[in-house]
Amino acid sequence: MRCRLIPVARTSLVSLRRWGSVGSRQQITRRTASAETISALKELLGDRLSTSRSVLEQHGTDESYHDVTPPDAVAFVESTEEVTEVIKICAATRTPIIPFGAGTSIEGHISAVAGGVSVNLSGMNGILKLDRENMSVKVEAGVTREQLNADLRATGLMFPVDPGANATIGGMVATNASGTTTVKYGNMKTNALSLTAVMADGRIIKTGSKARKSSAGYDLTRLLIGSEGTLAVVTEVELRLSGVPEAEKAMICSFDKMKDAIDTCTTVMQMGIPVARMEMMDENVVDAVNRYSNLNNSLRPSLIIEHHGSANELEQQSSVVQEIARDFGAMDIEVASTSEDRKRLWSGRHSVWHAVLNQVPGSRGFSADVAVPFSKLTEAVVETQQDLKTSGLFGTIVGHVGDGNFHVLIPFTDDNKEHLGRMKAFSHRLVKRALACGGTCTGEHGIGIGKMEYLPMEHGGAVDFMYTIKKALDPQDIMNPGKIFYANDRSN
Amino acid sequence: MRCRLIPVARTSLVSLRRWGSVGSRQQITRRTASAETISALKELLGDRLSTSRSVLEQHGTDESYHDVTPPDAVAFVESTEEVTEVIKICAATRTPIIPFGAGTSIEGHISAVAGGVSVNLSGMNGILKLDRENMSVKVEAGVTREQLNADLRATGLMFPVDPGANATIGGMVATNASGTTTVKYGNMKTNALSLTAVMADGRIIKTGSKARKSSAGYDLTRLLIGSEGTLAVVTEVELRLSGVPEAEKAMICSFDKMKDAIDTCTTVMQMGIPVARMEMMDENVVDAVNRYSNLNNSLRPSLIIEHHGSANELEQQSSVVQEIARDFGAMDIEVASTSEDRKRLWSGRHSVWHAVLNQVPGSRGFSADVAVPFSKLTEAVVETQQDLKTSGLFGTIVGHVGDGNFHVLIPFTDDNKEHLGRMKAFSHRLVKRALACGGTCTGEHGIGIGKMEYLPMEHGGAVDFMYTIKKALDPQDIMNPGKIFYANDRSN
Repeated sequence: MRCRLIPVARTSLVSLRRWGSVGSRQQITRRTASAETISALKELLGDRLSTSRSVLEQHGTDESYHDVTPPDAVAFVESTEEVTEVIKICAATRTPIIPFGAGTSIEGHISAVAGGVSVNLSGMNGILKLDRENMSVKVEAGVTREQLNADLRATGLMFPVDPGANATIGGMVATNASGTTTVKYGNMKTNALSLTAVMADGRIIKTGSKARKSSAGYDLTRLLIGSEGTLAVVTEVELRLSGVPEAEKAMICSFDKMKDAIDTCTTVMQMGIPVARMEMMDENVVDAVNRYSNLNNSLRPSLIIEHHGSANELEQQSSVVQEIARDFGAMDIEVASTSEDRKRLWSGRHSVWHAVLNQVPGSRGFSADVAVPFSKLTEAVVETQQDLKTSGLFGTIVGHVGDGNFHVLIPFTDDNKEHLGRMKAFSHRLVKRALACGGTCTGEHGIGIGKMEYLPMEHGGAVDFMYTIKKALDPQDIMNPGKIFYANDRSN
Repeated sequence: MRCRLIPVARTSLVSLRRWGSVGSRQQITRRTASAETISALKELLGDRLSTSRSVLEQHGTDESYHDVTPPDAVAFVESTEEVTEVIKICAATRTPIIPFGAGTSIEGHISAVAGGVSVNLSGMNGILKLDRENMSVKVEAGVTREQLNADLRATGLMFPVDPGANATIGGMVATNASGTTTVKYGNMKTNALSLTAVMADGRIIKTGSKARKSSAGYDLTRLLIGSEGTLAVVTEVELRLSGVPEAEKAMICSFDKMKDAIDTCTTVMQMGIPVARMEMMDENVVDAVNRYSNLNNSLRPSLIIEHHGSANELEQQSSVVQEIARDFGAMDIEVASTSEDRKRLWSGRHSVWHAVLNQVPGSRGFSADVAVPFSKLTEAVVETQQDLKTSGLFGTIVGHVGDGNFHVLIPFTDDNKEHLGRMKAFSHRLVKRALACGGTCTGEHGIGIGKMEYLPMEHGGAVDFMYTIKKALDPQDIMNPGKIFYANDRSN
């Protein structure tokens, strides 16, 4: 355990492992929470301030391959005002603050790489106000998306963003989450109207409004969305809701070659045919899902395509898509005609993470995440398949291909260093390939500690101005430090 | 003419008229371009640096009620690199830079309230690269939206954002423009994928990418969109394009009462029926348009509703909307069955500005611009109608009501001070009403110099953090100073 109870805030240089192109190590200044800081937090929160070993370990662990780096304490907060108090106490000793939701992030966002206090918002799980007329809902940041949709069930409304994991809304704001439905409903930037956030000096702000559009001042809402807790702790979110569609229609079709599957997808997008979901699975994924969920899908590269709308519209849209798929040689097209069939289809897709890990007993999962322009999608995916083969890696490719976004899931075990090395080298080539295509190093997982080296590769000199904003809004560098930017590479 | 050729950059306090709740005057520091600065710019640009009186006057004039405040010089730039050089020259003497596109803004954005150099980007009007496969196009900032759509005519693609005026893409980025089609296609934040921008120190950055989504770092694209030239000069934009719809169907219907028209609109939105445009006109607008465009629409509050999609979908959508309209007592429903009818219908709507001014010979136009949540739209518009009546003002209300956004157009003449006073007091009440409804002081026109006092009313303490960003990215306050923020009210 790395929690150190020492009398004053202590600064020491510890070497933290990061991996990248050259497996380089990056030094980061550790600022352990002082005994006074812990004691002040204890006074504020009582039992809701924990320094128990197991709690600390749990809060340094996410679903990624990254090292466990526990915080020095965990503050279980219950209100925006408490977050303010926690931040003020930490700011006084320049102690880092790491927001924590459900711990489902996969780029090390919640790792306490510089020490400090994890602020657990899962207790702030109130659905504060449903506004049916404006089709919005105000929730606390600790509400999970499944909790929210369960609560909305009887209303005819839904919150459509679906990243797979049962993340908290606050976490989804932090990484600008998206997922299977983004091709129709957008990502968190599309679906968050307004935020309540606590800034690095403890001040509480409210961004945006319930108006559907505005040109009033700088867009702090979209600046904070995707800022991974490095600018503020978001405590409440007003979310845009969508009506539950009148009807839904899903189909799965398989192809002889991956290229044909993706060409089908890009053609559908270029023709502007409305789809609500368009997911690609390679044959390895189909195999894993078949075994895990006891399904019987054809062992070929496959697309699952779903439409939302009126029954009439769906019929028409689905038939055009089937025609396109046939043009590209779809081997079989199975339409999920009943709601049960549809659920079974998606339960397979949603189980991919566990299904793939199940293929390698005792493994953890690595998930690459890139997005490229449509025109490069076929090339990027086909080359990636080839690369997996050449590298001798077992990996599976799934994609939110309607957004040009795909993941490679690779099961791994920590003890096989040689395999780990090949996996990391593969991932590095994948990101470089996506950037060479004019794409992005992360479509939806965020930078965290896992992709810091790629940010300047993708954005060049623009990163300096991102960092200028970071320094201006968080001059002490206490908000989730050591994430997004290689701070030590930049003048402070 | 206010252009002063003096040997060194001179700072003087000039009183500039602003109007607001109390008709307050705001002092702003004037920083006139020095002779050295002008001379350095002349050396760089030759004939493309102008200090001619008429050119200066033209560049201080937009389509608003705001005072004419010409710059000290106008730089007609032709490349991003030239913008860099101009900014470097100006930065050396802390001379303000005011980006200028088509001069169609209406909140005084291009007014040289602190002196300085207007950077005219209209010569940067190259359509650089059409990318059909990715449905995007890269353009220089001086391209106008009409020029772009004319160029795209044969491609089956279109750039959908339509603010009415033939603005430049750069200007539309600056104010986060939207308009009649935003209810379906979104605003500039939805439709700009990537920007090339020159920052306050002359450095060139590129934000975003062609990937349809990303979680890589802070969203500088959406920070710059709507920043009104106060953070950077945007020189190139990669725009997302949409397919020209297979079919379009428009209808106009009129109602006995405004309330019924708006209730129709909010019901359509709440039911999630896809509309591509949903515009409201009060009886005064219909009257003005009828006279101006020789039309014969019923003199009642009216809605124009348009659908885009396949012929089949349109039939169904349009018939549901007609049913809803009838439920709310629509008096007549006229479907524009031919493309010619549809064009006539929209030519009427597009001529509103000129049609209304035509009602009062020799007048200029004032255009209020607020947006409110749907649930408050009826109340806000009905109260606004009543307020116009009580104030004895001739005003017309048009609205992009699918977004909860509406404008009040009031023709005025500068010599009638009493009328001007009533108009300003009315406008102030309108904004306060929108804010009380949880709305915004500007749906699409921006803050400029006209709405600075409302920014803190709308965003409270969040404005301090907007200003922190401004200071960090433009520490010398040379980028369009005196806009958005009452800088003198804030610590520098």
